[in-house]
Amino acid sequence: MGDEVTTCIDVSSWSCPLPLRDCPHIVMGHGGGGKLSADLVEHLFLPAFHRQESDCSEQSDSLSTLGDAATLRVQGTRLAFSTDSFVVRPLFFPGGDIGKLAVHGTVNDLAMMGARPLYLSTGFILEEGLPLAQLSAIADSMGCAAHASGVKLVTGDTKVVDKGHGDGVYINTSGIGLIPEGVEINPMRARPGDVVLISGKIGVHGMAIMSVRDGLAFDAMIESDTAPLNGLVQAMLDVSKDIHVLRDPTRGGVASTLNEIAKASRVGIVIDEAALPVPAPVRAACELLGMDPIYVANEGKLVAIVPPESAEPMLERMRSHPLGTHAAIIGQVSDQHPGIVAARTRLGTARVVPMQIGEQLPRIC
Amino acid sequence: MGDEVTTCIDVSSWSCPLPLRDCPHIVMGHGGGGKLSADLVEHLFLPAFHRQESDCSEQSDSLSTLGDAATLRVQGTRLAFSTDSFVVRPLFFPGGDIGKLAVHGTVNDLAMMGARPLYLSTGFILEEGLPLAQLSAIADSMGCAAHASGVKLVTGDTKVVDKGHGDGVYINTSGIGLIPEGVEINPMRARPGDVVLISGKIGVHGMAIMSVRDGLAFDAMIESDTAPLNGLVQAMLDVSKDIHVLRDPTRGGVASTLNEIAKASRVGIVIDEAALPVPAPVRAACELLGMDPIYVANEGKLVAIVPPESAEPMLERMRSHPLGTHAAIIGQVSDQHPGIVAARTRLGTARVVPMQIGEQLPRIC
Repeated sequence: MGDEVTTCIDVSSWSCPLPLRDCPHIVMGHGGGGKLSADLVEHLFLPAFHRQESDCSEQSDSLSTLGDAATLRVQGTRLAFSTDSFVVRPLFFPGGDIGKLAVHGTVNDLAMMGARPLYLSTGFILEEGLPLAQLSAIADSMGCAAHASGVKLVTGDTKVVDKGHGDGVYINTSGIGLIPEGVEINPMRARPGDVVLISGKIGVHGMAIMSVRDGLAFDAMIESDTAPLNGLVQAMLDVSKDIHVLRDPTRGGVASTLNEIAKASRVGIVIDEAALPVPAPVRAACELLGMDPIYVANEGKLVAIVPPESAEPMLERMRSHPLGTHAAIIGQVSDQHPGIVAARTRLGTARVVPMQIGEQLPRIC
Repeated sequence: MGDEVTTCIDVSSWSCPLPLRDCPHIVMGHGGGGKLSADLVEHLFLPAFHRQESDCSEQSDSLSTLGDAATLRVQGTRLAFSTDSFVVRPLFFPGGDIGKLAVHGTVNDLAMMGARPLYLSTGFILEEGLPLAQLSAIADSMGCAAHASGVKLVTGDTKVVDKGHGDGVYINTSGIGLIPEGVEINPMRARPGDVVLISGKIGVHGMAIMSVRDGLAFDAMIESDTAPLNGLVQAMLDVSKDIHVLRDPTRGGVASTLNEIAKASRVGIVIDEAALPVPAPVRAACELLGMDPIYVANEGKLVAIVPPESAEPMLERMRSHPLGTHAAIIGQVSDQHPGIVAARTRLGTARVVPMQIGEQLPRIC
């Protein structure tokens, strides 16, 4: 007889980091680089694309390794092949712009396979009404970034969508790199006893974007760390070709990257929270917003997992490189709790660092 | 003292095929594959990207050849590398969907360099709220298309943009193909005396999309001709490796493709209007809409330019292939009027067939 309270929530319009894993629609989290993104690849794309994989004569060519790039062999030449789309807002942000990010992003995906990045394609989806001056600035930025990264932009495509659709500019870059013989870097190669390194201070790119996001802008002197990591990787390979894993912790941050590695290699990873290099402004901004820097995106950092004997020389070489000045050893690989990342807190206790479910910070790259 | 009539036209919201070449904003025509698209590449992208080209040690690797794909040499292996973004509306149309189109489009771009397409990347930009069932249907379609085309989808990326931005799904595919030694196919190789062939009936894809476009739908039994052309190209290469030019006349149709070739090769091209195979429903729909089939997009046809001695055997081989049943000789390359395409009309007169300026039919691929 009493009134029945019906709470009606329209989850389809949410864009917050909640576990909407049973929602039959795409939510922002599906693009967040966390658990929802992984679900989409595992349960939707891989089965759909698998019909051609099953006829695959060379099983080494596979989408299912889930690395930052595919590794291919064409007439004896080992290639890395990678693709990434960029939808960051705003288009220009402290320390960079969508064009710079689009070049660095794919250069880095190739570098994370130990490849020397060679060629990039550029696919533009432009919104009707975009000022040509903005497009020109972005294209200039891409030319500069490519030059600085030592890659060539060799082929391109442009589409235009109606005003009100798109966000000015979306860019896809795909890239081809050459993998030297003897280099076998992939997320499945972490072994118990291996040492986990980070190349520098974390959380910078995500917080730089956050600081200029509409409706959220706060006053922070944080510039994106966007940078091409192929030079640093080359320096590291000069120390030892036997690097087990390299990943750039972009969407989902260091936490999601380590979780992916732990899962792919079926190992546990233990990190030391106090060892994580977090810049003071990032820490302050994260506290303000209730975020954890370990989940915040980076665009110029890498996580490396190397055998224990090469950890110290590798760290030393990284620190002597301009992009590795603040490199640090942050943890170890363990045969305990496979698939799980744990952190030793500053209080000496341990906590599980789960994979991000959805989206902490939409549209960061 | 009288009223002054001020006609205020906001060109920035136009999406019609008018010459808005001095507009400082992106208009739909910049994505139309015609003169405005070419201007954008020539005057904006190439200069911006050139800063790295100038340090180019191998000048053969170049964006500036403007073919459907770049040709690269990596450790002695000749590769074709191509990228294409797909923004077609509606996502599902008679005879295909955006996924099928995205696979065929890049397969065909590689095939137009004489390459054997091997690997494709897939970059998705999804709109928040997209039903997963739709995405799943599109992914299935891509898997099938890749299987049928003999290529592997080896690496991918997914981004999600806010509801109201995007149009459900945008897809970028990039691809790598292997160019056999002895094959030199590019738009600069048309020579006076060469013969121009078309592999089948024209205008089908564009009119299929048009027939289901919101606010325009008309009743026509036209299905898109989207198809992978690599098999047909292989059959043609078996007749002779000395094919001079191959192009798939997508955006801008046969007219724009021939104009690009005439300009790139610095030759004239004369086509015979009566020889163009135009299906009756396409002709009827074009008459209704005041369009010319020669400007309408195709997604499963190719234009071939071959030396005169191989024209007949080539035509015969094309006609024996399922995708070349209606192949025809449609014209010749001339040393007259370089850079210009002319048509002999049914009345025996000649007319110039200019390049499309902007956009005849937005969002067809």
